[in-house]
Amino acid sequence: MKDLFYNYIKTLQDKVTKEFESIDGKAIFKEDLWERTEGGGGRTRIIENGNVIEKGGVNISSVHGELPKSMQDYFKVGKVDFFACGLSLVIHPLNPMAPTVHANWRYFEMYNKEGGILKQWFGGGLDLTPFYLFEEDVKYFHQTCKAICDKHNSKYYLTFKRNCDAYFFNKHRNEARGVGGIFFDYLKKDDTSSLKDHYKFVTGLGDSFLNAYTPLLKKRKDIKYTAANKIWQEVRRGRYVEFNLIQDKGTLFGLQTNGRIESILMSLPPKVQWKYNYHPEPNTEEARLLKVLKFPIDWV
Amino acid sequence: MKDLFYNYIKTLQDKVTKEFESIDGKAIFKEDLWERTEGGGGRTRIIENGNVIEKGGVNISSVHGELPKSMQDYFKVGKVDFFACGLSLVIHPLNPMAPTVHANWRYFEMYNKEGGILKQWFGGGLDLTPFYLFEEDVKYFHQTCKAICDKHNSKYYLTFKRNCDAYFFNKHRNEARGVGGIFFDYLKKDDTSSLKDHYKFVTGLGDSFLNAYTPLLKKRKDIKYTAANKIWQEVRRGRYVEFNLIQDKGTLFGLQTNGRIESILMSLPPKVQWKYNYHPEPNTEEARLLKVLKFPIDWV
Repeated sequence: MKDLFYNYIKTLQDKVTKEFESIDGKAIFKEDLWERTEGGGGRTRIIENGNVIEKGGVNISSVHGELPKSMQDYFKVGKVDFFACGLSLVIHPLNPMAPTVHANWRYFEMYNKEGGILKQWFGGGLDLTPFYLFEEDVKYFHQTCKAICDKHNSKYYLTFKRNCDAYFFNKHRNEARGVGGIFFDYLKKDDTSSLKDHYKFVTGLGDSFLNAYTPLLKKRKDIKYTAANKIWQEVRRGRYVEFNLIQDKGTLFGLQTNGRIESILMSLPPKVQWKYNYHPEPNTEEARLLKVLKFPIDWV
Repeated sequence: MKDLFYNYIKTLQDKVTKEFESIDGKAIFKEDLWERTEGGGGRTRIIENGNVIEKGGVNISSVHGELPKSMQDYFKVGKVDFFACGLSLVIHPLNPMAPTVHANWRYFEMYNKEGGILKQWFGGGLDLTPFYLFEEDVKYFHQTCKAICDKHNSKYYLTFKRNCDAYFFNKHRNEARGVGGIFFDYLKKDDTSSLKDHYKFVTGLGDSFLNAYTPLLKKRKDIKYTAANKIWQEVRRGRYVEFNLIQDKGTLFGLQTNGRIESILMSLPPKVQWKYNYHPEPNTEEARLLKVLKFPIDWV
């Protein structure tokens, strides 16, 4: 399964980066290969200053070795060896009318002292962070997620949609990071689903990612916008930074497993503003977005 | 001591904000009074978009009630009541040649079940974060800190300077946030110093703050700079954000004690950039700064 999934994400990385380069038409991804002292490494691909994409990263990594102490505590296991591989992507479009997108799919193994598999599981998801709300875009994104979920388990979509709303939430701001999508930290094997089923589900999501996001990007990338729209995007990106650095377990996992710092923090937006106590005027498009972030909606 | 110190920081806030307004010549501080549901509140003063100061805050607060669970664990105490008051300030100048400054002085009390004082202590410090290195400025700042320290205890300066270098350190980047200053988390009473001595020391630092920083601000605020200098400042401000959101115990304390979020996060810079894997060219002024951040120097 390790090799099968790692090969899958390698191919997916190629497919996704090629498509984003084609949409952008100007910037291309820069590739950096890196190795982790304790075992493993990754292939980071970053795009910056494009026509369409202001900054983005589509990274894969595969790390292994002894599970760091803090992660032992988190998973409530003792001193064990682990393996983890996954693909993480974040795209920050230049145009504030186009939403930022994040996706991550990962596979974990933990071993007992004899080297046997103690636990193995998939996790991940995809979610959307718009700066201006186009309801049809959000519905389309959620519908695409739901279609894949429904093929595998009729309970998946609603469970993982609720997970996503709960997880990508800035507790200190009491608001969601974006309009969600689906998120599952740990797919559980049971009578009706095997690890192989989970592989099919996760790769099904991977295969559908471009279809879920790129139509929105293409539709919004050329809309005219004002300097005020751009400021709003940069202020909202500040909340994205706050989530990733204060709340996100993925970022924490990367920092604690001594991952490559520039690959982990590629998720941070290119240009960000923090204005003191900045609130949009009532009855504006900006206020309408905030309302949805305060009270997550069922989109499908 | 509670009232004595709170009155001191109220007066200091007035003095400091008045002086910064005078140096800026354009922007003035906006005041917000706030109350904390669980007890206490604060007086936040923020300045933005000035001639000299791009963003800054000089805040006082006084909070009390039951110590939050996470703080009980941190202080290794059980369920106790606490009182904390302090002044926190951060000034982000517009001109990248002028350094950012941070200072904080605070007083804590913890109570036993009968309401008696279990522990009481002062903490705080001040530190400088330049974007371009003027060695004479850093020396002057440290010398001013040392002069106050030396009046109280010959060991204070070196101990607290080392503390500061160790504390304001981005572990995940393996570099200091800035060029330091002094920092003390918990002043200990002993045979040679009483709480009253600590009060004199901390207020001595408060009294000297403007003298330690404003000469540097005045000297650098009008130096000509390029767009590239400004980009460097904004990229380095990204490290400031990373420190405050990932590493800083003060920010964490604020978030965990349900402090006012806009007052806590006023420390975040106005405009910030994250560029992927951005390194200055060798033998530039930017590279010279980084060298000092990687290997902290004894400035006096």
